[in-house]
Amino acid sequence: METRYFPPNVYASDCPTRRVLDFIGDKWAVLIISLLEDGPKRFSELQRSIGGISQKMLTQTLRTLERNGLVSRKLYPEVPPRVEYTLTPLCETLCPTIIAIRDWAEEHIDEVTASQMRYDSRES
Amino acid sequence: METRYFPPNVYASDCPTRRVLDFIGDKWAVLIISLLEDGPKRFSELQRSIGGISQKMLTQTLRTLERNGLVSRKLYPEVPPRVEYTLTPLCETLCPTIIAIRDWAEEHIDEVTASQMRYDSRES
Repeated sequence: METRYFPPNVYASDCPTRRVLDFIGDKWAVLIISLLEDGPKRFSELQRSIGGISQKMLTQTLRTLERNGLVSRKLYPEVPPRVEYTLTPLCETLCPTIIAIRDWAEEHIDEVTASQMRYDSRES
Repeated sequence: METRYFPPNVYASDCPTRRVLDFIGDKWAVLIISLLEDGPKRFSELQRSIGGISQKMLTQTLRTLERNGLVSRKLYPEVPPRVEYTLTPLCETLCPTIIAIRDWAEEHIDEVTASQMRYDSRES
């Protein structure tokens, strides 16, 4: 049984919230959740949409998201069987934040790149 | 020279925005930025406040944040010299999102834990 904190405290290393931080801001989780925000998707659609994600990483990340209640996996008993991934109501509460991470990266990439260049020229 | 995307696109594996996603949602970055949001801090204060962070991880994360323009390092020429870390104006644009990640983890930990227990009992 895990230690419980009242109130929860991400700054304590053994508070379970700390392990939530491990996966909610994760790069692949951000990309998957952002895509599912548009509607349910099949595994192959997700894989096609996310450049450079391996089948193993996509499987692993979807499983982590499902285990933690952010994504649900629906099996449609067709022939061949169809599986779709959807955001859960719990994930809807996180979605605006996830979308904001994605958008920040796209909106501020020029400032980030300029800073990297300044830093690297100073170091060398 | 890196490939540039117009517009930037996090779903393309070689778009530089993808590497921004590597560090902005990172657990340690979230904890450090949330603390610095209250005001400048010294290395030792950060280390004391973040349970379980190693000196190496703190050094590495601060360096990444500095290189990418989110944190600035100020040296005060005192005896002994004092170093303080502050958020940059660029980071102020990201701060509300980072704080939202931290708060989400603390606010929804019970739902996440309940989901983990359901998932694990189903699997075994």
